[in-house]
Amino acid sequence: MKEILMKDSKVMQTKLVLPLDTNNLGTMFGGRVLASIDEMAAIVSMKHSASTTVTASIDSVDFLSPVKVGDILSIEGLIAYTGRSSMEVYVRVIKEDWKTKERVTTTTSFVTMVAINEEGKTIEVPKIVPQSEEEKEIYESALKRKQQRI
Amino acid sequence: MKEILMKDSKVMQTKLVLPLDTNNLGTMFGGRVLASIDEMAAIVSMKHSASTTVTASIDSVDFLSPVKVGDILSIEGLIAYTGRSSMEVYVRVIKEDWKTKERVTTTTSFVTMVAINEEGKTIEVPKIVPQSEEEKEIYESALKRKQQRI
Amino acid sequence: MKEILMKDSKVMQTKLVLPLDTNNLGTMFGGRVLASIDEMAAIVSMKHSASTTVTASIDSVDFLSPVKVGDILSIEGLIAYTGRSSMEVYVRVIKEDWKTKERVTTTTSFVTMVAINEEGKTIEVPKIVPQSEEEKEIYESALKRKQQRI
Amino acid sequence: MKEILMKDSKVMQTKLVLPLDTNNLGTMFGGRVLASIDEMAAIVSMKHSASTTVTASIDSVDFLSPVKVGDILSIEGLIAYTGRSSMEVYVRVIKEDWKTKERVTTTTSFVTMVAINEEGKTIEVPKIVPQSEEEKEIYESALKRKQQRI
Amino acid sequence: MKEILMKDSKVMQTKLVLPLDTNNLGTMFGGRVLASIDEMAAIVSMKHSASTTVTASIDSVDFLSPVKVGDILSIEGLIAYTGRSSMEVYVRVIKEDWKTKERVTTTTSFVTMVAINEEGKTIEVPKIVPQSEEEKEIYESALKRKQQRI
Amino acid sequence: MKEILMKDSKVMQTKLVLPLDTNNLGTMFGGRVLASIDEMAAIVSMKHSASTTVTASIDSVDFLSPVKVGDILSIEGLIAYTGRSSMEVYVRVIKEDWKTKERVTTTTSFVTMVAINEEGKTIEVPKIVPQSEEEKEIYESALKRKQQRI
Ligand SMILES: CC(C)(COP(=O)(O)OP(=O)(O)OC[C@H]1O[C@@H](n2cnc3c(N)ncnc32)[C@H](O)[C@@H]1OP(=O)(O)O)[C@@H](O)C(=O)NCCC(=O)NCCS
Ligand SMILES: CC(C)(COP(=O)(O)OP(=O)(O)OC[C@H]1O[C@@H](n2cnc3c(N)ncnc32)[C@H](O)[C@@H]1OP(=O)(O)O)[C@@H](O)C(=O)NCCC(=O)NCCS
Ligand SMILES: CC(C)(COP(=O)(O)OP(=O)(O)OC[C@H]1O[C@@H](n2cnc3c(N)ncnc32)[C@H](O)[C@@H]1OP(=O)(O)O)[C@@H](O)C(=O)NCCC(=O)NCCS
Ligand SMILES: CC(C)(COP(=O)(O)OP(=O)(O)OC[C@H]1O[C@@H](n2cnc3c(N)ncnc32)[C@H](O)[C@@H]1OP(=O)(O)O)[C@@H](O)C(=O)NCCC(=O)NCCS
Repeated sequence: MKEILMKDSKVMQTKLVLPLDTNNLGTMFGGRVLASIDEMAAIVSMKHSASTTVTASIDSVDFLSPVKVGDILSIEGLIAYTGRSSMEVYVRVIKEDWKTKERVTTTTSFVTMVAINEEGKTIEVPKIVPQSEEEKEIYESALKRKQQRI
Repeated sequence: MKEILMKDSKVMQTKLVLPLDTNNLGTMFGGRVLASIDEMAAIVSMKHSASTTVTASIDSVDFLSPVKVGDILSIEGLIAYTGRSSMEVYVRVIKEDWKTKERVTTTTSFVTMVAINEEGKTIEVPKIVPQSEEEKEIYESALKRKQQRI
Repeated sequence: MKEILMKDSKVMQTKLVLPLDTNNLGTMFGGRVLASIDEMAAIVSMKHSASTTVTASIDSVDFLSPVKVGDILSIEGLIAYTGRSSMEVYVRVIKEDWKTKERVTTTTSFVTMVAINEEGKTIEVPKIVPQSEEEKEIYESALKRKQQRI
Repeated sequence: MKEILMKDSKVMQTKLVLPLDTNNLGTMFGGRVLASIDEMAAIVSMKHSASTTVTASIDSVDFLSPVKVGDILSIEGLIAYTGRSSMEVYVRVIKEDWKTKERVTTTTSFVTMVAINEEGKTIEVPKIVPQSEEEKEIYESALKRKQQRI
Repeated sequence: MKEILMKDSKVMQTKLVLPLDTNNLGTMFGGRVLASIDEMAAIVSMKHSASTTVTASIDSVDFLSPVKVGDILSIEGLIAYTGRSSMEVYVRVIKEDWKTKERVTTTTSFVTMVAINEEGKTIEVPKIVPQSEEEKEIYESALKRKQQRI
Repeated sequence: MKEILMKDSKVMQTKLVLPLDTNNLGTMFGGRVLASIDEMAAIVSMKHSASTTVTASIDSVDFLSPVKVGDILSIEGLIAYTGRSSMEVYVRVIKEDWKTKERVTTTTSFVTMVAINEEGKTIEVPKIVPQSEEEKEIYESALKRKQQRI
C-alpha cells in the first residue's frame, strides 16, 4: 500500500457565518460547528483513502469563545494518524477578526474515520508520513488518543 | 432559586432519516447526528433555565452502528446535573427497526450548556433533583464528568 | 393482521422556532407548521404499518395564535383510526411558554396516511385499539371524519 | 379603500420536484406541497394588501395523485374574496407531464390570510372585484366557505 | 422534429425574499438570484425538450439595484433560440414594489442549456418559432450571442 | 489607504458534492456552482475590505465538464484588481478525481464586489499589489475586463 505525506493530506475551508447558523442572540449554534468538523473529516479521509468513509468517533469538543453572525471561520483538516482501515483526522477551527486580522483558535478536535467499500466492509488505507516536528507531534498525540481508546 | 425534578426536564424527539442526511452509500452523516444532539441539548437547557443557552462542550461521541435512509431515530434528552450557570445534558440516540420494533442505542453523550442573558453574561439556573435510582446514577456520572474536566 | 394499542402508537417531537422559520415580523410561517404536521403523520404511520406511507389528505387547520422566534413547539401524534390501508393520524401542536411553563394548543389536525409497497400498491395495516375514554373519543371523531369524507 | 380586479391578483409559480422533496420511493412529501401552498398564499396576499400577512386557516387538502422526482408543478393563486382584514386565497396545484404535456390538477385549497401591521393588529385591505363568470363562481364559493366557518 | 411557438415556452416564477436569502444588512446575496436564474433555465428547457438538461453556460449578469428582505421577485423565462441539442433560455428578474406596484428589471441573462439522455449523450430538441416583433428580437439577440461564443 | 499583497487575499474552499446538489441523473446543478462562486467572492472581498460587500456583476461562466455526486470541488478565490470601492475577485473551481488525483479546472470567473457601509454607500478599499508574473497577468486581465465594461 502506498504512503502519503501528511502535508499533502491538508484541506482548507472558509465559512461565512450567516443568520441561519445562529440563535436569537446572534450566536452560532455549536451543532453547526460540529457538522462542519464532521464534513471536513469526511473530505480529508475520502481524499486520502479514495473511498467512501464513515465517522467512527469524534473527540470531546470545547467551545471557548462565541462565534457571531458575520464572523469568518477557517477550518483546517489533515490526516494525523492511520491504522489499517481507520484514519485520525485533526480538525482546527479558527475565527478571524475582519478588522484586526487577529486569528483565534475556536476549537480543535480529532475525528476517527473508517474507510469502507460498497458492501460496508472496512478496507485498508494508505499510510500517512509525518515530516516536520509539528507534524510528528500531531502524529504522536493521535496515536496516544487511539491507544487510550482501546 | 427553585428546584426542578429531573424527570420533568425530559424532552423527546423523533427523526426520520432522509436522503438529504446521507452519503452516496445511503449512510447517515455523523455530523447530522451531532447537530441533532446539540439541538436537543439547546431545547432541554432553554426549557430548564428559561433563558438563552450556549454550548460550552460536548463529550466524545462513538458511532457504533450505521444509520440508513428511512430509519427512525428517537432522541431523548434530560438535565443530568446543574452547576451555577452550567447544565449537563444527557442525550441518548436510539435507532428503531420498523420491522422488528427492536430498539438499539446508537450513541449517548453529555453536553454542557451555559445559561446567558442578553449581554452574554452567565446567569444562575434552577437546581435539578434526581429521584429514582437510574436518575441518581446519571447525576453521579455527570458530576464525575464535570470534576474530571476541572 | 395483528392489533396495536393506540397509546403505543404515540410519537412526540419538540421544535425550537428559528429565524429561518419566520417572516419579517418574527412570526412563524403557517407552512412550516403544516410541514411539521405532515412529517409527524409520516413517522407515526410508518412506525405503525412498518412500510412506506403517503399523505392522502389533511384536515382543515386553524392557526389561533401566532408563534414567534424562540418559542418551543411540542408536536404529538398518534394513530386515531385504521381502515384497510389507511390510517387517520391525530396531530396536536402545543406552544410552550418558557417563563410561565404555560402550554397552549396552537392547532390540531387529522391527516390520512396510506401504506404502500415498493410498486406503489396499497397494503393492509395493523388495526389500532383504543382503551381509555379519551382514546375512544379520538377514535370516534376520526371515524366520523372518515365517513363524512366518503 | 380602493378596489382591485380579481384577475390582477393572480400569481404563478413553477416548481421542479427534487430528490430533496421526496421519500425513499421518490414520492413527494405532502408537507412540501402544503408549504408551497402557504408560500403562494403569503405572496398573493402581501401583494394585494401591501402589508405583512399571516395564515389564519387552510382548508382541508386532498392529494389525488402522487407527485414524483422530476415532475413539474404549476402553482396558481389569486384572491377569491376579501373581508375587512382577511383575504381568501384560492390556490391550485397542477402537475404537468413532460412527455404528453398533459396537465392534471393535483389539489386545490382555500387559505385565509389576515393583514397585520407592525404591532400585529389587523388592518383593512382593498376589496377584490370578480368579473368573468368563472371568477364570480370562485368568489361565491369563497364567501360560502367563510360563512360556514362563522 | 416538431416545432414549438416561443410564447408557449414561457414560464413564470414568484419569489418572496426571506431573511435566509440575505446578508447582515438585509441585502439579498447575488448567488441566490443566480441559483434562481439557473433553476428557471432548467425548468424552461426540460419542458421544451421533454428530457433532462444541463447548464452549459450563463451570460454575464449585472446587479443594478439591491434586493431586500420582504421584496417580491418575478422571474420569467422562455426559449429564445434552439440549436440541435442546445437551447438559449432568456431569463428576466423583476423586483416589484408592494406599495407603488412599480416593477423594476433587476437583471436579465441568457443561459445555454443542453438536452441529454440517460447515458449523458446530447439529443436533438424541438425548434422554437418566434412570432411577434419582440420575440423575433429576442431570437436574433440569442443567435448573435451564440455566434460570438463560437 | 493601506496596500495588501495579492497572495495574502487568497481563500480556499473544498466542497463535497451531495445528492442534494444534483438532478435526477446525479449531475450537479449549475446554480449550485454559481452560488458557491458568489459565496467565495463575498468572503474574499469582505476579508480584503473589512466591510460588508455586495455583488455588482459576475462574468459569463462556462461549465466545461459535468460534476457528479461524490466529486470533490476545490474553489479558490483572490482579489485580482481593486478600484476605489470595487474589487474584481478571480474565482477558480477545480474538480478532483479521488482515484487518479487528477485535477481539472471546471470553470473560472471574475466577480465584481463593491464595499458598502451601513447606509449602503460605497466606501474605499485597500489597494491590491500583485508580485509574481502569474499575479501580474491576473491583474492585467481583470483591469482589461473592467475597462471593457465601462
Ligand atoms: C466504524 C465501523 C465501520 C467499525 O466497524 P467494526 O466492525 O468495529 O470494524 P473493525 O473492528 O474492523 O474496526 C475497523 C477500524 O475502526 C476502528 N474503530 C472501531 N470502532 C471505533 C470507535 N468507536 N472509535 C474509533 N475507532 C473505531 C478500529 O480501531 C479499526 O481501526 P483499524 O482498522 O485502523 O485498526 C462500525 O462501527 C460502524 O459502521 N459504525 C457506524 C459508522 C457510521 O455510520 N457513522 C455515522 C453514524 S450517524
Ligand atoms: C461557555 C462560556 C459562556 C463560559 O464562559 P466563562 O467566562 O468561562 O464563564 P465562567 O468561568 O463563569 O463559567 C461558567 C460556567 O461554564 C462552565 N464552563 C466553562 N467552560 C466550559 C467548558 N469548556 N466545558 C464545560 N463547562 C465549561 C464553568 O464550569 C461554569 O459552570 P458553573 O457556572 O456551573 O460553575 C464561554 O466559554 C463561551 O462563551 N463559550 C462559547 C459558547 C458558544 O458560543 N458555543 C457555540 C460556539 S459555535
Ligand atoms: C388571524 C388572527 C390575526 C385573527 O385575530 P383575531 O383577534 O381573531 O382578529 P379578528 O377577530 O379581528 O379577525 C380578523 C379577521 O380574521 C378572520 N379570522 C380569524 N380567525 C380565523 C380563522 N381561524 N379562520 C379564518 N379566518 C379567521 C376573521 O373572520 C376576521 O376577518 P375580517 O377582518 O375579514 O372580518 C389571529 O388569530 C392570529 O394571530 N392567528 C395566528 C396567525 C399565525 O401566526 N399563523 C401562523 C401560525 S404558525
Ligand atoms: C453595486 C452598486 C452599489 C454600485 O452603485 P453605484 O451607484 O453604481 O455606485 P458607483 O457609480 O459609485 O460605483 C461604485 C463602484 O461599483 C462599480 N460598478 C457599478 N456597477 C457595476 C457593474 N454592473 N459591474 C461592475 N462594477 C460595477 C463601479 O465601477 C465603481 O467602481 P470603483 O468604485 O472601483 O470605481 C449598486 O449598483 C448596487 O447596489 N447594486 C446591487 C448590488 C446587490 O445588491 N447585489 C445583489 C443583488 S441580488
